[in-house]
Amino acid sequence: MQRVSQYFPILKWGKKYNRDDFSGDLLAALIVTIMLIPQSLAYALLAGLPPQMGLYASILPLVAYTLFGTSRTLSVGPVAVVSLMTATAVGGIAEAGGAHYIEAAISLALLSGFILLVLGLLRFGFLANLLSHPVVAGFITASGVLIAVSQVRHLAGISAHGDNLPELGLSLWHGLPETNFITLSVGLGGLVFLVFVRSRLSGILNSMGVSINTAGMLCKTGPIFIVVFSTLIAWYFKVDERGVAIIGDIPQGLPTLQLAGFERVFSKELFTAAILISIIGYVESVSVGKTLGAKRRQRIDFDQELVALGASNVASAVSGGFPVTGGFSRSVVNFDAGAVTPAAGLFTAAGIAIATLYFTPWLAFLPKATLAATIIVAVTTLVDFSIIWKTWAYSKTDFIAALSTIVITLTFGVELGVLSGVVASIALHLYKTSHPHIAEVGYIEGTEHFRNIHRHTVVTSKHIVSLRVDESLYFVNASFLENEIYKLISERSELEHVVLMCCAINEIDISALEMLEAINERLKEAGIKLHLSEVKGPVMDALQCSDFLPHLSGEVFLTQYQAIEGVLSKN
Amino acid sequence: MQRVSQYFPILKWGKKYNRDDFSGDLLAALIVTIMLIPQSLAYALLAGLPPQMGLYASILPLVAYTLFGTSRTLSVGPVAVVSLMTATAVGGIAEAGGAHYIEAAISLALLSGFILLVLGLLRFGFLANLLSHPVVAGFITASGVLIAVSQVRHLAGISAHGDNLPELGLSLWHGLPETNFITLSVGLGGLVFLVFVRSRLSGILNSMGVSINTAGMLCKTGPIFIVVFSTLIAWYFKVDERGVAIIGDIPQGLPTLQLAGFERVFSKELFTAAILISIIGYVESVSVGKTLGAKRRQRIDFDQELVALGASNVASAVSGGFPVTGGFSRSVVNFDAGAVTPAAGLFTAAGIAIATLYFTPWLAFLPKATLAATIIVAVTTLVDFSIIWKTWAYSKTDFIAALSTIVITLTFGVELGVLSGVVASIALHLYKTSHPHIAEVGYIEGTEHFRNIHRHTVVTSKHIVSLRVDESLYFVNASFLENEIYKLISERSELEHVVLMCCAINEIDISALEMLEAINERLKEAGIKLHLSEVKGPVMDALQCSDFLPHLSGEVFLTQYQAIEGVLSKN
Repeated sequence: MQRVSQYFPILKWGKKYNRDDFSGDLLAALIVTIMLIPQSLAYALLAGLPPQMGLYASILPLVAYTLFGTSRTLSVGPVAVVSLMTATAVGGIAEAGGAHYIEAAISLALLSGFILLVLGLLRFGFLANLLSHPVVAGFITASGVLIAVSQVRHLAGISAHGDNLPELGLSLWHGLPETNFITLSVGLGGLVFLVFVRSRLSGILNSMGVSINTAGMLCKTGPIFIVVFSTLIAWYFKVDERGVAIIGDIPQGLPTLQLAGFERVFSKELFTAAILISIIGYVESVSVGKTLGAKRRQRIDFDQELVALGASNVASAVSGGFPVTGGFSRSVVNFDAGAVTPAAGLFTAAGIAIATLYFTPWLAFLPKATLAATIIVAVTTLVDFSIIWKTWAYSKTDFIAALSTIVITLTFGVELGVLSGVVASIALHLYKTSHPHIAEVGYIEGTEHFRNIHRHTVVTSKHIVSLRVDESLYFVNASFLENEIYKLISERSELEHVVLMCCAINEIDISALEMLEAINERLKEAGIKLHLSEVKGPVMDALQCSDFLPHLSGEVFLTQYQAIEGVLSKN
Repeated sequence: MQRVSQYFPILKWGKKYNRDDFSGDLLAALIVTIMLIPQSLAYALLAGLPPQMGLYASILPLVAYTLFGTSRTLSVGPVAVVSLMTATAVGGIAEAGGAHYIEAAISLALLSGFILLVLGLLRFGFLANLLSHPVVAGFITASGVLIAVSQVRHLAGISAHGDNLPELGLSLWHGLPETNFITLSVGLGGLVFLVFVRSRLSGILNSMGVSINTAGMLCKTGPIFIVVFSTLIAWYFKVDERGVAIIGDIPQGLPTLQLAGFERVFSKELFTAAILISIIGYVESVSVGKTLGAKRRQRIDFDQELVALGASNVASAVSGGFPVTGGFSRSVVNFDAGAVTPAAGLFTAAGIAIATLYFTPWLAFLPKATLAATIIVAVTTLVDFSIIWKTWAYSKTDFIAALSTIVITLTFGVELGVLSGVVASIALHLYKTSHPHIAEVGYIEGTEHFRNIHRHTVVTSKHIVSLRVDESLYFVNASFLENEIYKLISERSELEHVVLMCCAINEIDISALEMLEAINERLKEAGIKLHLSEVKGPVMDALQCSDFLPHLSGEVFLTQYQAIEGVLSKN
């Protein structure tokens, strides 16, 4: 039972579900639905897909997350960064707008779903940690810039393409003469309205006596107003006859379930893209879930979240959607509107389903430029270059990771950007730990304290050298220590004892053990004894499983002071 | 001048070169030359190349190493594992035995040389540390098995091929009916002789009054005797007319220098192979150099060794050779025979050049089966499965790394084997550090010592929890700690203070810093104060560059005892 409810968290919260929960969830669902309709259409546009796919991706995935998710208030569906990554991946193997393109996007969701499910069943939630904060922050910021720039074409009614900034920029520059000024007016009008709503409306409403919460909630519905308004304008003035792109007829009705035919478009490229989308989507989703959960002292289960997002993506694929994940803005709205349980997601799904059934014919005249404006305003919250100065002040390796991720994402696109970010983070970490801080220490006269000889006035002996290594010993840094010790013994001819002070060593792996054995042998040949001091419990346990200790030329001391006393007493 | 002699170590030892050095080097060179002739021919055969290429690879590369190398006694040239890797890489893009195959092997040496040179000039010697000891040991053992099995075809005179054990095994099985029994007799005869020489002769000679050193040296020349003997037999009985494969005419004379035409065979596959060969060759070479150097209290410079091996490979390429590196057996012979300086390498090169000029016609009748026997006996020293039990007893993650490297190398070949080994080592290291040991501590009554509450009887308070993290905090484990703390606060309703004991934290990167900021904020919202204690100097320095400390809800204490005292005094 414990095990079943681990995989179906709904069994836990469902049992205690009551009327108060129901009314809270229903209200939140209503508000999220109103916000989601334009957002779903917009992210389908961003992914280069027909608008109805955005709606489809906002129905079944929410139902799946309700069943499997551990966050009470996370809202899944199409999000900006994942939609951009979908466009990049699918654009690489299929012609934009064709049937093959749509099939590939659906397959991408299925693949990504399976990858997440497998990782979840293997309890591999820790993999998300491979993305360091500077890499994620840099990547999201650069993606936000790419998304905003990619929407300029819809805003101006020109055709342009490209997966990175140089391509997009050049393409937009060439397309500039085609600018349709009616489209541009609609787009800029929408942009101005949305910026006003976002930055000022809340304050104005508040000063008119509306409560802060209600005002904030009203502002979140800004996009639906501009959608309705610009659709009416477009319909009344028949702007499509004057060259303004509208989204056109959206098939009415619910998606048909499809369970076969995906294999036709599977390929190695799609698989790589699915891995990257899975990881980025997962990281984005758990960071949102974690933040919201902490506010109400609720926890999410990282491994089960993989299962839940996997199920959501599979659900998206079988119902004709594209890759989805937990989105920041929608989840925050859900949370602020008072959602109490994942049931709010179920009600939201019902809301979107009703919209898909009855309201889509009314959206045919919606100008693409309006959707582009909503996307641009939405992604401005993603763009935050402050990570550059923050890391510069704090740590140069983190700075390199952040800057290289931003530059590579902008210059070469999202896939290479996130890959190089991961590689850079790991490589820089290994580089740092491969040169551990090794201090030669001596004791401060009259105390039992040992300190760095270069920072303090300490007592040393020409027959003894005491080294404190401030890092676990493992394969990446083993030879560094070996080299340092050989350097020492080649410089000091009167040396008789080397004491390794192990208080900061949390682990000694077998590469480091072999290295210690080699050092012990070499020192023995040179007539020098090797001693250890302040070895931690778990490290000592491991050493006792090897035959290092019986061969050790010196002794193991409990404290560094005892080591020096012991060595001197025998001299 | 310092800088010049850093890149040309010959300037250092050359100045003090004297007559004693000269006679030592000359004798060593003579012995190494005699040993190298059959070895060079054999490894060319292993790489699938004409025999003279093995000789060419043993002339100029030695000269280059004499100029640039920092090990006094390392001997470079063709070695078993790198020759096998060359066969695999070149076999993947060219028909065995053709001109294109030869060109590709030469280009591989050039590419590998450039890669090593670039890494050396960038001072990237630390990269070799990415190969952990279990991975290297597992890889070398598995390669030894592959090499021995691949030579069975020459031993039995059948045609077989394959880059991995299943392919080779199946291919040998199918070829079994073609066995040429004269070839097999020659091969097995050689094998028996060499095994006898290696395992018994030294003892017998010793009991006859020959000194251990001389006896050992004589045994190393075993291969040249069997080469001469089997060549004479083959010539006298004209065995080639009875189906025994002989190496045939070897072009007489020195290689012609070639400086162009490499670009025709460059490809992405060759580049990947060159990277792997460079890394494996470098690791093998520096581990030999390090071991020998330590015996005479001499040190090698890891970065300069990259330059030296790079130059050696470029030298091999321009003189028609294939990838080379520092070999274990040849270097040990050189060392034991009394080589004092790298000049021994220069004299060895002269010896091989003389052999190439005058002795090659005599080798035409040398049976390939004899060379196969020398290879098989040589690689038995590489095969050592003890790494499996050693790692099993000491550390399960090291065991997984070793076993997976062996299995993947045997099953899928050398390239995938070494790649998966590196990935496994790094992934396992990240996995281990992603779940750091976090101990809740309390103090032992009457002392200032704090210990794990699960291992000792300690004093705690329901208002305070003290956590000791036994690992540096960085992006891979940041969210683990966050999760643990959130778990704690959701379980203990009376908690008022969390104290992080930082004595084992050697670094806090920006991802971990953001995590600490988030924890601080969440705890503050929940009315809980966060304190730090025993923060190391360098970590404190870094924290002072951020705005974490001004926002910290609690305080930073010098010792854990002061922390508890301070917190209690304010309650």
